[in-house]
Amino acid sequence: MKIAVDAMGGDFAPKAIVEGVMLAQKEFPDTEFQLYGKESAIREHLTNEKNIVIIHTDDKIESDDEPVRAIRRKKEASMVLAAKAVKEGQADAIFSAGNTGALLAAGLFIIGRIKNVERPGLMTTMPVMGQPDGGFDFIDMGANADNKPEHILQYAILASYYAKNVRGIANPRVALLNNGAEATKGSELTKKAYELLAAEGSINFTGNIEARDLLTGAADVVVTDGFTGNAVLKATEGTAMSLMSVLKKSILGAGLKGKIGALLLKDALRGMKKELDYSSHGGAVLFGLKAPVVKTHGSTGPEAVSHTIRQIHTMLESNVIGELVTYFDEKMEEVTEN
Amino acid sequence: MKIAVDAMGGDFAPKAIVEGVMLAQKEFPDTEFQLYGKESAIREHLTNEKNIVIIHTDDKIESDDEPVRAIRRKKEASMVLAAKAVKEGQADAIFSAGNTGALLAAGLFIIGRIKNVERPGLMTTMPVMGQPDGGFDFIDMGANADNKPEHILQYAILASYYAKNVRGIANPRVALLNNGAEATKGSELTKKAYELLAAEGSINFTGNIEARDLLTGAADVVVTDGFTGNAVLKATEGTAMSLMSVLKKSILGAGLKGKIGALLLKDALRGMKKELDYSSHGGAVLFGLKAPVVKTHGSTGPEAVSHTIRQIHTMLESNVIGELVTYFDEKMEEVTEN
Repeated sequence: MKIAVDAMGGDFAPKAIVEGVMLAQKEFPDTEFQLYGKESAIREHLTNEKNIVIIHTDDKIESDDEPVRAIRRKKEASMVLAAKAVKEGQADAIFSAGNTGALLAAGLFIIGRIKNVERPGLMTTMPVMGQPDGGFDFIDMGANADNKPEHILQYAILASYYAKNVRGIANPRVALLNNGAEATKGSELTKKAYELLAAEGSINFTGNIEARDLLTGAADVVVTDGFTGNAVLKATEGTAMSLMSVLKKSILGAGLKGKIGALLLKDALRGMKKELDYSSHGGAVLFGLKAPVVKTHGSTGPEAVSHTIRQIHTMLESNVIGELVTYFDEKMEEVTEN
Repeated sequence: MKIAVDAMGGDFAPKAIVEGVMLAQKEFPDTEFQLYGKESAIREHLTNEKNIVIIHTDDKIESDDEPVRAIRRKKEASMVLAAKAVKEGQADAIFSAGNTGALLAAGLFIIGRIKNVERPGLMTTMPVMGQPDGGFDFIDMGANADNKPEHILQYAILASYYAKNVRGIANPRVALLNNGAEATKGSELTKKAYELLAAEGSINFTGNIEARDLLTGAADVVVTDGFTGNAVLKATEGTAMSLMSVLKKSILGAGLKGKIGALLLKDALRGMKKELDYSSHGGAVLFGLKAPVVKTHGSTGPEAVSHTIRQIHTMLESNVIGELVTYFDEKMEEVTEN
């Protein structure tokens, strides 16, 4: 198993990336890690070279580069070389904490879509409050700005395979994000998507879910169009961040009483923060491509990098993409035969 | 000034409604309150009849009634009679804490749209974290499941008038909810809406806003389609509720230490809850109709009822709807002349 790592992507690269890879190196002695980036900078942090291959390059994609242009022009950037390694079969998956748009573009244009998958979607496993091991796979978080009902059906199939193969959920409950729980609710898009989902035999469609119930664990997979998914994800993050900062300010404003109170509640407050942290499930997958293309936050640390490599390892080990390739291939044959 | 009140709408009706009206009665001695509902039940809570008129009816719309059917069939329901009073000029505005869908239907079909306003939107003033007096007007929160770019432009005009006339903001900053801050970002819908907003001289359009920045006070008015608005509002509410419940559970789970800590932080925690409570700004307006049609949460108490009546009072006093009628009338004339 070979994982191509963009060692130069993210706010703390290459340090956080190299340190994260070394954590994963201990956990997965069967895996080769290909580190793409500036060799001298990588070596500064690398203390164990077992199963590590460094592919030196001076160029990299910056976080504010225009994605598609960067991919096309910076042919020697660490991310581009890593993606090419996957395309050419020298690596099985790519990991980056760099420019999200550029990684999406590299995934689409260099690695390419699974045959018959129309629009790959960005998927992440979100947390369920009060269930530290719980989570739901949310797709599309924003790879696309406009989706058709057929894309949403494909997301449901993709994420169901993921929940089964990677998260070990036997019969994942799939819900459609909608503006009401009743089957008759929705926009033109979600009403049509509902019909397609209800008619699809290969998934366990349980109906609509409203955005207010997302974090309650009512579904294992939640599908939506990329515009709504992006807005809902950002609203969730923004509300959580705003609340944490209001709480912090209130505590600081309460003087000595506040300080003692916060000290006594330290574990409780830390627990609350931990519930919100979904990095233990790994990063965001651009799903529907021929290989795992996985992204973590730019501000990610070594721990989160190693979680994401574990996720990629499970994706490869469980052959989730191989099974999806077969599914979408056979499905299209059926359509042609009928 | 005459306000038609659906005394039977909401979980605590008529008690909470009547008590709220009596709070408003003291604040606004110039206003007549018409209470529609079961007279004996209303009188049980009414201790001051000054400026109060009771219009008795036995029928009411239940929270689980199918909205449009209920409005058409329950011709004697308190909400329907209140809406008819507005239509016939016997009242200037309607207030209800009952079935939201039914109130939307009553507003649209009985009271009717302002001429040239295509799709009235549901608007509420949302809180800004860390600014107790701050807020932004968010429209459409879900009156429509599908919107066109032109509707979003109309929302911007409606809400700008509201922010000016009702909230006293001289030159309200209008932002478009979008999937990125850059002008080139967006779906087909938001890209076209952006163009229309940028070209509209009568508003102060400041560009895109992402859902994660909503609660930071970056805009006075935020416009979006009803599907996205509904999802974002519910994601915000759901996240806040989930976090509060996780925090509560963590505190309870921390034993004596937690109890003392929570006691010391009582004010801070209460402050956090208060920041989230936007009922002081009033209820949700179905905006774009010929009269104020305003809704509060079903679980609303007397205090929130009185805030909402204050909001309606300001809407009437500032003649915001009269000015909008003139604006949309003249605008259409311009279009016809050109």
